[in-house]
Amino acid sequence: MPEAVNLAEKLALFTEHWSPKIVTTYNDNDIMVVKFDGEFPMHNHPETDDFFLVLDGHITIETEDGNVDLRPGELYVVPRGVMHRPIAHGEAKVLLIEPQGAPNSGDPATAATKVRI
Amino acid sequence: MPEAVNLAEKLALFTEHWSPKIVTTYNDNDIMVVKFDGEFPMHNHPETDDFFLVLDGHITIETEDGNVDLRPGELYVVPRGVMHRPIAHGEAKVLLIEPQGAPNSGDPATAATKVRI
Repeated sequence: MPEAVNLAEKLALFTEHWSPKIVTTYNDNDIMVVKFDGEFPMHNHPETDDFFLVLDGHITIETEDGNVDLRPGELYVVPRGVMHRPIAHGEAKVLLIEPQGAPNSGDPATAATKVRI
Repeated sequence: MPEAVNLAEKLALFTEHWSPKIVTTYNDNDIMVVKFDGEFPMHNHPETDDFFLVLDGHITIETEDGNVDLRPGELYVVPRGVMHRPIAHGEAKVLLIEPQGAPNSGDPATAATKVRI
């Protein structure tokens, strides 16, 4: 039977920050929820765009092309190859989309392990 | 300069139903907002999964594998090739993701033209 993914229920299952959790897949992409708090390191993804939709809270994505402020119901797609760093002003809850296997830090050596919940 | 996509602002720009509007792209996919009302024809997409995230309202996606009910903050990805039909119970606002050029009805002959807003 098909089952809805309730994003708030998924977000209630964990407390860690910067640790994306896979909730479903779309073609070859992971659909993930993540909790941000504070600053993530500057990085890029040479092979893929990077999708951010804020569900709760307030983030700024600093990029080499300028900064973008996102609040709930706002999204931004960082183009592939563009250096960027998300910063959360307090805890923020975000829907992320990245290709399956893409390191969230841009570098497999420092990437979080993405677990399905 | 990077610019946030505010989904409520984009949805306020049009009134038609079943006419997806492109708000940005992610790799080779269109990120779209759409207003549903009533029933859409049963169809499938042999080449792609079909992503639905409800932003406002209440929909049911009838599929050949069973039905799934979605309310705000809930998403479902219809697997490629699975027959399905979204039904909105009153007007609903939905975030859709499909590959660029994919016909929303599964058939280019009956598909809505997707315009960027």
